[in-house]
Amino acid sequence: MHKTPSGSSLGPGGLDLSQAFFKPINNTESPSPTKRNTKISVIGTGNVGMAIAQTILTQDLADELALVDAKPDKLRGEMLDLQHAAAFLPRTKILASVDYSVTAGSDLCIVTAGARQIPEESRLNLLQRNLALFKAIIPPLVKYSPDCILMIVSNPVDVLTYVAWKLSGLPSNRVIGSGTNLDSSRFRFLIADHLDVNAQDVQAYIIGEHGDSSVALWSSISVGGVPILSFLEKQQIAYEKETLEEIHKTVVNSAYEVISLKGYTSWAIGYSAANLARSILRDQRKIHPVTVLAKGFYGIDGGDVFLSLPAMLGRGGVLGVTNIHLNGEETQRLRHSAKTILEVQSQLGI
Amino acid sequence: MHKTPSGSSLGPGGLDLSQAFFKPINNTESPSPTKRNTKISVIGTGNVGMAIAQTILTQDLADELALVDAKPDKLRGEMLDLQHAAAFLPRTKILASVDYSVTAGSDLCIVTAGARQIPEESRLNLLQRNLALFKAIIPPLVKYSPDCILMIVSNPVDVLTYVAWKLSGLPSNRVIGSGTNLDSSRFRFLIADHLDVNAQDVQAYIIGEHGDSSVALWSSISVGGVPILSFLEKQQIAYEKETLEEIHKTVVNSAYEVISLKGYTSWAIGYSAANLARSILRDQRKIHPVTVLAKGFYGIDGGDVFLSLPAMLGRGGVLGVTNIHLNGEETQRLRHSAKTILEVQSQLGI
Amino acid sequence: MHKTPSGSSLGPGGLDLSQAFFKPINNTESPSPTKRNTKISVIGTGNVGMAIAQTILTQDLADELALVDAKPDKLRGEMLDLQHAAAFLPRTKILASVDYSVTAGSDLCIVTAGARQIPEESRLNLLQRNLALFKAIIPPLVKYSPDCILMIVSNPVDVLTYVAWKLSGLPSNRVIGSGTNLDSSRFRFLIADHLDVNAQDVQAYIIGEHGDSSVALWSSISVGGVPILSFLEKQQIAYEKETLEEIHKTVVNSAYEVISLKGYTSWAIGYSAANLARSILRDQRKIHPVTVLAKGFYGIDGGDVFLSLPAMLGRGGVLGVTNIHLNGEETQRLRHSAKTILEVQSQLGI
Amino acid sequence: MHKTPSGSSLGPGGLDLSQAFFKPINNTESPSPTKRNTKISVIGTGNVGMAIAQTILTQDLADELALVDAKPDKLRGEMLDLQHAAAFLPRTKILASVDYSVTAGSDLCIVTAGARQIPEESRLNLLQRNLALFKAIIPPLVKYSPDCILMIVSNPVDVLTYVAWKLSGLPSNRVIGSGTNLDSSRFRFLIADHLDVNAQDVQAYIIGEHGDSSVALWSSISVGGVPILSFLEKQQIAYEKETLEEIHKTVVNSAYEVISLKGYTSWAIGYSAANLARSILRDQRKIHPVTVLAKGFYGIDGGDVFLSLPAMLGRGGVLGVTNIHLNGEETQRLRHSAKTILEVQSQLGI
Repeated sequence: MHKTPSGSSLGPGGLDLSQAFFKPINNTESPSPTKRNTKISVIGTGNVGMAIAQTILTQDLADELALVDAKPDKLRGEMLDLQHAAAFLPRTKILASVDYSVTAGSDLCIVTAGARQIPEESRLNLLQRNLALFKAIIPPLVKYSPDCILMIVSNPVDVLTYVAWKLSGLPSNRVIGSGTNLDSSRFRFLIADHLDVNAQDVQAYIIGEHGDSSVALWSSISVGGVPILSFLEKQQIAYEKETLEEIHKTVVNSAYEVISLKGYTSWAIGYSAANLARSILRDQRKIHPVTVLAKGFYGIDGGDVFLSLPAMLGRGGVLGVTNIHLNGEETQRLRHSAKTILEVQSQLGI
Repeated sequence: MHKTPSGSSLGPGGLDLSQAFFKPINNTESPSPTKRNTKISVIGTGNVGMAIAQTILTQDLADELALVDAKPDKLRGEMLDLQHAAAFLPRTKILASVDYSVTAGSDLCIVTAGARQIPEESRLNLLQRNLALFKAIIPPLVKYSPDCILMIVSNPVDVLTYVAWKLSGLPSNRVIGSGTNLDSSRFRFLIADHLDVNAQDVQAYIIGEHGDSSVALWSSISVGGVPILSFLEKQQIAYEKETLEEIHKTVVNSAYEVISLKGYTSWAIGYSAANLARSILRDQRKIHPVTVLAKGFYGIDGGDVFLSLPAMLGRGGVLGVTNIHLNGEETQRLRHSAKTILEVQSQLGI
Repeated sequence: MHKTPSGSSLGPGGLDLSQAFFKPINNTESPSPTKRNTKISVIGTGNVGMAIAQTILTQDLADELALVDAKPDKLRGEMLDLQHAAAFLPRTKILASVDYSVTAGSDLCIVTAGARQIPEESRLNLLQRNLALFKAIIPPLVKYSPDCILMIVSNPVDVLTYVAWKLSGLPSNRVIGSGTNLDSSRFRFLIADHLDVNAQDVQAYIIGEHGDSSVALWSSISVGGVPILSFLEKQQIAYEKETLEEIHKTVVNSAYEVISLKGYTSWAIGYSAANLARSILRDQRKIHPVTVLAKGFYGIDGGDVFLSLPAMLGRGGVLGVTNIHLNGEETQRLRHSAKTILEVQSQLGI
Repeated sequence: MHKTPSGSSLGPGGLDLSQAFFKPINNTESPSPTKRNTKISVIGTGNVGMAIAQTILTQDLADELALVDAKPDKLRGEMLDLQHAAAFLPRTKILASVDYSVTAGSDLCIVTAGARQIPEESRLNLLQRNLALFKAIIPPLVKYSPDCILMIVSNPVDVLTYVAWKLSGLPSNRVIGSGTNLDSSRFRFLIADHLDVNAQDVQAYIIGEHGDSSVALWSSISVGGVPILSFLEKQQIAYEKETLEEIHKTVVNSAYEVISLKGYTSWAIGYSAANLARSILRDQRKIHPVTVLAKGFYGIDGGDVFLSLPAMLGRGGVLGVTNIHLNGEETQRLRHSAKTILEVQSQLGI
C-alpha cells in the first residue's frame, strides 16, 4: 500500500485491511508500463508558494503535488491543511519534505524561495544571498527531474531566472520566470475596470523588467478588437501622455501598494503562476509575457539577458517569441531594461 | 459607468471613454427587470476568511463577492490582490468595505470574524466577547440582505450559530454553521489514505459538537459501498475499539496539530465552506454534516441547541435532516454533546 | 416530494419514504423567500437543440433545464437520456414537455426549432412557414417567462431574430440571435490552425448577416496583440486580397461542408450557444458578434434590421455595441448586408 | 508548422507566416525530452462514439483526441464540427482518419464500433460479425499504442471485452468494458429522483452482465450513509420484494425505452465513458462497476469470463476489485450471469 511520506498510519492493520478490501487484479504480472502522472513541485511554502500550490490544487492541474521548504514544521502543517480537503477535491497526491527527493520526476518545478531584504542591505548583497540559496535549490531539482521545466517566481525574477538557467544547465526554452505575466493582468484589470468590460477582452502587455523599468506596450493595446490608441485619435479624445503613464505607474506600484496594505502579495501571483502552469502542462500554445532568454529578440544583444517578452508556451516550455510591433520609444525602453539587468548580472560572478 | 467602491480611477475621461467604446443599446427604455446575480459576502478577512473568499473565486461560485473587515488597510490589500487576477479568471465583481452596505443583496453571508482567546481568559469570557462582536455583525447583515442564508464559521461554531440565529431573527433553515463538515473530510481523508482509495468513495460522518466531544459514526462508515464494521467482522479482522478511537482522536487533534505546525488553519476550512456554498447556491440537495437547530432530532430536546447533523442543503438552506441510524453509544454521545453545548448557551444570557 | 413531470414513480411508498429519510426542518414556518435558480429552456430537440442542451448541462450553466418539442416521444427519450447521467454530473433538474408551461420562470430561452426547406420551395415560402411556427412559439415563451432573455438559433437567424422581437414585445436588449458568433469561431480556428497558435489568442470578427453576405473584419484581426494586416505590411509579406477572401469563403462554406459530410451541424453551434449563455447568465460583460437590433450603428438606418455586431453581453442581455473601426469597404459590405435582410423582412408582412 | 491531417491550408504562405509571427527560441538545440501529452482515441463515430468524444472535449480530459471510422465523409464532418468550436474551448488537437496510425501513442482507446443486428439475425451470428470487426480494430490499435488502456463500449460489452482482451494480448488490468457503470447511474438516478436527493449521495451498484441478467446489489445500497434495506426494516416500511424488482426492471429496460423513443442512446453513455476516462487518466483510484476479468472473484471460476464488478480504476487501469458483501441470492445471480456469458464465449471459437 502506498503511504505518503508524512502520512498518518492507522496502526499495524493498514496493509492487511487494504488488501482485504481491494483484491488486486493479476498481481503476478509485471506492472503496466503506462506513463507517469503530471507532477508539479513548489519550492518554498511562504505566502506566495502556498497561494500557488493551493490554486494549482483547486484548478486540478496536477495529479501529484510536492512541497519543499527548509522549515519542516511549517511544511508539514501546510501539507496536512491541503490534505484535509481531500473529500472536496479530485484526488491529488500531496507530498512534502525538506529533502528534494520528494520532487523526483516533476514535470514542472516552481521556485518561490528567496532571501528577504535585511534593513540597510544593498540590493547586490541580497542578490548574492539569493545566488547562494539557488545554488542549494537548482542542482538537486534538476538532478531529480532532469526533464522538468523550471519556473522562477522569486524576486528579482529576471536576474534569478538567469541564475537558475546557468545553475541548471537546461536549454533556455525550459527555464522561464513568472515575469510580467502578473503586471500585465493588473494592467488589463485597470483598463477593464475603467471601461467596465471583461478583462479577458482586453489585450495588453507589459514587458521588460518585472519592476520599475517595465515597459507598457501602449501601441498594441486593444479592447474587444479595437486598438485603443488609434481609437482615441479617431474619437479625438485627448489623452495626455501623462494620463497614460499614470496608469502604468499604478501597475508598477501595485505590488508595493498591496504589500504596504496587507504585508505581502499572494493571491494574484498564485493565479498568475497557475495560469502559466496550465498553458505549459496542457500544451495550450498560448502567449504570455514571461521572463525568457531575450538575446536576439527586438535587437537586444550584448549578453545572455533574461526579461519578459510575449512568448508562446506549451508542453516544450517556451515555443517562440511573438514578433510584436514596438514603436521607437517602446524599443528604447526595452533595451534600457535589458541593459539595467545585464549590469546587475555582471556583478554576480556566475 | 460602474465603479467599485475602492476602484482606481484613470482620470476624468473615464465615463466618456467607456461610452465612446460601447454605445448603449436602447438606452431610452427602462432597465430590464432581470434577476440579480449570485452574491456572497465574507465577514472577516483573516486567514480563514481569505481562504474561503479565494476558493469561492477560483471555483466561480459567485458573480459578486463582498468582503467586510474592521481593518480598512488589510481589507483593501486583500481586495486588490484578488482583483489583480482578473485576467486569469471569469469576471467576478469584488467589493470591500468596512461598511456593511457593501453586502446588500447577498444570497449567502459567511461569518469568519471572531475574538481571539487572551492568555488566561476563561472560555465563557471569550464567548461573551464574541457575543458582543456578533451583535455588531449579524443585525446589519440581515438588514442589508433579509433573504440571505447565514453561514457561521467562527468558533466555537455551534454556540455562535445559535447566537447568530437568535440575533438574526431568521428561520432556522436559513442559519447554518460549518460544523463538522471539515472534521468529516479529515476523517474521510485518514480512512482513504489508509486504504489508498479516493476519499470521495469513503462515506463517513463526524457529527455533534465541532470539537472535543464530536461523535464519529463508525456504524455507518462505508467504502465504495462496503460497510466497514460489518466487513471487518466478516473478515474476522480484529480491530480493537481503541484502534478506532485512535483514528477519531487524530481527527479531533487535526486542527490543533495544524495550528501548532503552521500557526493557523486555512486551506481545508476554505474548501469546506466553498463546498457548502456550492450545495446551497446551486441547489444541489446534497447531504453535509453541518451545524443546524437540532431540537427534535435523535431524541435531542431540552432546548434550542445547535450542533452538526447530516443535513440536506439546497437553495432554501437546510432542507431536512437525514434519519441516519445511530447505535446506542453513538446516540448517548450525541446527547451528551447537546447537553454540553446547552450548558454553555445558558450562561450567555441571550 | 418533488416529481419531474415525466419522472418514474417507484410505487405508492414514494412520498412516505422520502419523508422517513429526510425529516424536514421547521416545516411549520413559511417557505424561505430566497431567489429562484437559474433556468434555461431549449425549444426544439433536434441535433442543434440537443447539442446546446447537453453542452449547457456538461458546463453546469443552469440549475434547471427545460426542453420543449412538438414530438413527445423524441422529447421524452432525450430527457431520459440526459437524466440517466445524473450520477456523473452536478445535480440539474431536467424537465421536458410539449406544453410551454414547463418553461415557466426561465432566465434564458433558446429557440432552435425551425421548418426545413422542402425541395423547390422558395426562400420566402420557407420564411412564411417559419413565421407561422414562431407565432406558436414566441408568445407562450414570453407569457411564461416575461423576464427572460430570448436567444434565437433557428435559421435564417437574422430575420427570425427580428420576427421573435416583434412577436415577443420585449425590449431589443433582451432579444439576440446566435448570429456570427460561430462564424467568428470558425474564422479564429482557421487562422489559429494556420499559425499553430491557440485560437483564444486570435481576435477576429465576422459580422453582418449569418450567411453568404457576412463581413470579415480583416482590418481589426490581431494575434496575440499583433494586428495581422499591418504586420504583413511591415514584413512585406505579399498577401493577395484573393488569398484573404479565400479564408473568408472557407468560413462561409464551413456550414455547407459539414452538412454535406455528416448531414447536419451540431457540436460547434452547441458550444457557441453555451458560450453566449455563460456570458449572459454569469454577467460576464464579454464582447461577442451576435445578432442585435442594428439600427443606428455604423450608419445603418432605413428600418429595424437585426444583424450581427460585436456586442457586450451580460445579465441584462445586450449591454452595448462596440465602436469598432471599419474601413470603407467593410462599412459598405455591412450596409449591403443590412439592405439584403431588410428586403426579406419587408416581404414578411409582420 | 504542425498541420492536422485534414487541416485546411490557407495557401503557400502558411509556414513562412507562422515563422514570421513566432520566432522560435534556441532552435538549434535538440527538442526537449519532455513527456507526451494525454491522448484519447475513439473508434467509431456513430451517436455513441461522438457523444463520448464531445463530452471528453468539453470536460478537457485530453490534450489530443483522435477519431477513427470506416466512413471518411462522416469522419471529416465530425472532426470539422468539433474543430470549429476552438474559440470556445481549451486547445485540444483533434485528428481524424480512416487509418489507425492517427491513434499512435494513445493513453486510452475507446472502442464504440459494432455491427448492427440484421432483422431475424441470430445473436450468435451478430457476435461472429462483431468478432470479425474487432479482428480489424484491436490489433492495429495495440500496434500503434502498445502502452494504452483499452475501453470497450460496443455491445454485447461483456463478450466483446473478452474478445478485445484475447485479440490484444494486453494484460487483463488494461482491458475494461464500460459495463454496468451506466446501469448503476440509471439506478442511482431512479432512487435519487424518488427521494428527491442528489444522485451523487446515492451509493448503489448494478453488477454482472450489462443487460437482462444484471444483478442489483440491494443489500449494499445506501443514501447519504443510510443503508436502505435495514432502514426500511427499522422503519417497518413494508417494501415488497416485487417493488424492489420493479425498480431494477426499470433500469434494465431504460436502454430499450430510450431507443424506442429517440432511436438510440447517446448522452448518458457519453458521460459514463468520460467519467471512466477521468478516473483512469487522472489516476483517481475511484470505484466503478465496469467489465473486468472476473475469474477468481466472488467464487466465479470455470473460465476467463468478463463481467462487471466494482473495480478501482487509476492510471494503471484496473487496480483491484472491491470485496463487497453479496447475500446468497446476489451471489447466485452473479454466477448465473457468468455462466450465461461463458456459454456465449465458448461458441465464438476464439
